[in-house]
Amino acid sequence: MILESVWWSPAGDGVPAGVGYIDQRRIPHDVIRSVASSVDDIVETIATLAVRGAPAIGIFGAYGVALARELYAGDRAAFRAAASRIRGARPTAVNLAWAVDRVLASTGAPLDEARAIHEEQRAVDRAIGENGAPLMPDEGAVLTHCNTGPLATGGSGTALAVFFAAHNAGKKLHVYVDETRPLLQGARLTTFELAQAGVPATLIADGAAAATMRAKKVAAVVVGADRIARNGDTANKIGTYGVAIAAAHHGIPFYIAAPRSTIDFETRDGAAIEIEERAPGELRALGGVATAPADVPVYNPAFDVTPGRLIAGIITEYGVARPPYDESIPDLATRPAFGLLHR
Amino acid sequence: MILESVWWSPAGDGVPAGVGYIDQRRIPHDVIRSVASSVDDIVETIATLAVRGAPAIGIFGAYGVALARELYAGDRAAFRAAASRIRGARPTAVNLAWAVDRVLASTGAPLDEARAIHEEQRAVDRAIGENGAPLMPDEGAVLTHCNTGPLATGGSGTALAVFFAAHNAGKKLHVYVDETRPLLQGARLTTFELAQAGVPATLIADGAAAATMRAKKVAAVVVGADRIARNGDTANKIGTYGVAIAAAHHGIPFYIAAPRSTIDFETRDGAAIEIEERAPGELRALGGVATAPADVPVYNPAFDVTPGRLIAGIITEYGVARPPYDESIPDLATRPAFGLLHR
Repeated sequence: MILESVWWSPAGDGVPAGVGYIDQRRIPHDVIRSVASSVDDIVETIATLAVRGAPAIGIFGAYGVALARELYAGDRAAFRAAASRIRGARPTAVNLAWAVDRVLASTGAPLDEARAIHEEQRAVDRAIGENGAPLMPDEGAVLTHCNTGPLATGGSGTALAVFFAAHNAGKKLHVYVDETRPLLQGARLTTFELAQAGVPATLIADGAAAATMRAKKVAAVVVGADRIARNGDTANKIGTYGVAIAAAHHGIPFYIAAPRSTIDFETRDGAAIEIEERAPGELRALGGVATAPADVPVYNPAFDVTPGRLIAGIITEYGVARPPYDESIPDLATRPAFGLLHR
Repeated sequence: MILESVWWSPAGDGVPAGVGYIDQRRIPHDVIRSVASSVDDIVETIATLAVRGAPAIGIFGAYGVALARELYAGDRAAFRAAASRIRGARPTAVNLAWAVDRVLASTGAPLDEARAIHEEQRAVDRAIGENGAPLMPDEGAVLTHCNTGPLATGGSGTALAVFFAAHNAGKKLHVYVDETRPLLQGARLTTFELAQAGVPATLIADGAAAATMRAKKVAAVVVGADRIARNGDTANKIGTYGVAIAAAHHGIPFYIAAPRSTIDFETRDGAAIEIEERAPGELRALGGVATAPADVPVYNPAFDVTPGRLIAGIITEYGVARPPYDESIPDLATRPAFGLLHR
């Protein structure tokens, strides 16, 4: 079964209403399901990364506003102040501000709007999965990098949604998961999500990806995206580019799975995407254990850019964009909004 | 200065003779130089991996036999028993048995023979370095994977010997070092050895190698080898194959640096090389810190095989073997023994 990472928890027998979540800081050691039942709880849960992944944070924040409405039903000023606090819990999280604003602007009940946001995310993820599933082999090995599952989106994910949909359609996939250094999202989160969904999966070191493609006859690679340029060049977690090159070398199709919202139609190509560098400490130690000399210089880019020419298709909620991307991607911009109305 | 990892420590003012070594278990946290001054010390140092790397173990064992001769000068039976214990300290270490047997078979003093073994290793490594240095750029970035330096060989290493020789010849190299999961030999040992030698170096995640080649304009890749087949197919630490593919994609020459003794003239190609799988625990935890679900299935090959067609040259003590390897490699088998006499 696909994991539910965020949910509305109604009031029950002496239990107040709240917003449920899986504490992502504890995974994979423990699966702790908690309920945030005050605005302080909501803000702290977001700020401490107990809930992470841009879409998941947005959904959690939207439910948080719905909770604030229940808590401050008679006090409009207190409700607005609470919504404002939730909106600011992670200042750089665009989805959070967008979702809170959307709930506040809604003419209906906040909880209904939060549920609509959540359901739209589920629908987008489900469509990505269904559009990607036919590209998967009926049986055999596939490979992914980093984390693109339910924990991050609050739905069924992007690349993982494709594997889930293929698995549920009866395809016998075996997923090889790159551990994804330095932060090990593949090892910690993706293996956990696949196990929860009952999809057979095996963890490998990032360096083993090329050897695994050859030894295990990998039939397809699917990864997510942080940002897609208009020509198909795709920024994603560091390591993606090397996986794409190795896939090309072995003649294995390499797919991106991402919602249209990931496409930056204003960015012409990958050269225009700025690559954030993260702290050197991520490579000098792990969980307090030193892994290198304390003062070693480190180059630690968070992302790399895979050129569109290495990408066999971009799996979106609207279908699979194929090369040439400078035609298929602008075409996506013209499609009507995707959501409940379109299911 | 190039690190000395193993050395003979003569008796001095009230200090007994012994065999000096850097305790590799403590690197990079501490650089502990110790002296083993009893046969028990020698055996324990080898058995506990305080000295590791096949050639370095051989040299250490040879000096150990020389030490046993000093300790049991008048007791031939005790000496033979001590040598036998040293020889068996790591049963699978071929170099150790070879070196101990060579010292025992020598008609000269054991210490002289141990010194000859050490000096021959230094000469081989130095020749590899000198043969490889002209292939390096006068200035710019190079990249390596895993650990191939003085700690492993007792000389100046293989791939690192090339960087050292180029650096000492005035070339301005900057070495990017893959951390080399799962055991992090690049992060722990290679960065340390390069820093000791004053060669500028930067640590990267294995997944960042392809992005680094592009962003930092890497001009050459040099790695070591565990075993080279007659057609140039090369088994080396897991991750090497992916690095070779990425180098080819960027048009960067990819070199192997290894002594002739690494070539298995009896093995026709890489398909005949058996790949050892290591314990899954290496990917489930690091230094006691869990990095993945405790029961996650793991595929953990120790090595991969890089096809000869991705290798621009194999740098040996005899010179650089170039494609076609099925001609240049058999030619190496015909060369006279390399050693002091040939310097």
